Amino acid sequence: MRFLGLDPGLRLTGWGIVDTDGNRLIHVADGAVRTDDALPVADRLVQLHRGLADVIDRYGPAEAAVEETFVNRNPVSTLKLGQARGVALLAPALAGLPVAEYPPNLVKKTVVGTGHAAKEQVQMMVRVLLPGCDFSGADAADALAVAICHAHHRATTRRLAEAVS
Amino acid sequence: MRFLGLDPGLRLTGWGIVDTDGNRLIHVADGAVRTDDALPVADRLVQLHRGLADVIDRYGPAEAAVEETFVNRNPVSTLKLGQARGVALLAPALAGLPVAEYPPNLVKKTVVGTGHAAKEQVQMMVRVLLPGCDFSGADAADALAVAICHAHHRATTRRLAEAVS
Repeated sequence: MRFLGLDPGLRLTGWGIVDTDGNRLIHVADGAVRTDDALPVADRLVQLHRGLADVIDRYGPAEAAVEETFVNRNPVSTLKLGQARGVALLAPALAGLPVAEYPPNLVKKTVVGTGHAAKEQVQMMVRVLLPGCDFSGADAADALAVAICHAHHRATTRRLAEAVS
Repeated sequence: MRFLGLDPGLRLTGWGIVDTDGNRLIHVADGAVRTDDALPVADRLVQLHRGLADVIDRYGPAEAAVEETFVNRNPVSTLKLGQARGVALLAPALAGLPVAEYPPNLVKKTVVGTGHAAKEQVQMMVRVLLPGCDFSGADAADALAVAICHAHHRATTRRLAEAVS
């Protein structure tokens, strides 16, 4: 199975593609969609949408997972982030993919073993869990961590959703 | 010229279509896109996107205007609203429409004459400015007010944008 992980932001949205083969995780690709901060927000959201639609088209993941956002102290930043996050949730859902969401602490706990791990620990464990992976940046590493988290938790998440509905 | 006004929200996004003929404003249509709060957020954003794409397709507006959101005291609500707002900005921009944004105070000032008007005053003036208009709800009335505001300010907005770029 192939999973897409996303770490959303208006300026930069990290993405990572991970395959599972039994218990084995395989790194497929990663990167970031950048938007031009000289453009109006609506145009930046179009850039983000097209970039993500292109990644989904190219790699054909079966499911997507998006990191739940830390709610910022600054409400203007929170609103901005929310707008990017709306597009990051929409793009895979429009392509027909189920979209899961995971809080940052659960992503860290799954990948490193503690919910309060530093960024560097997460990146080190992403390299250990995805042998041969040389990710392209910090946002891409976070996105790969979200995909790994989803690979571990999807069965549970699905069962819970079915129990609730 | 035909304008689309939007008042975004995750549960309910109001929309209104207004034509201008010289200085005259003509009410064309209004309504609201509702999303099912029993569904996951990603699916609700798909409902919102499809609903707005459908309105744009049906009425073919030339330009869109979105109300800038009051930043809520509650950061979780602000993030949720941001997600809906991202989709409300994206839908017309993806359809190739220029998308303007107006703060609520400017919308009120334009329609009523004061930035601190009550909702009822805005609704009364929308009825006066769009003769024969019997809007379908409070969100639709707000969206019509945004479209009226854009009809009044678009020349200025455009000149400012050109001067800046």
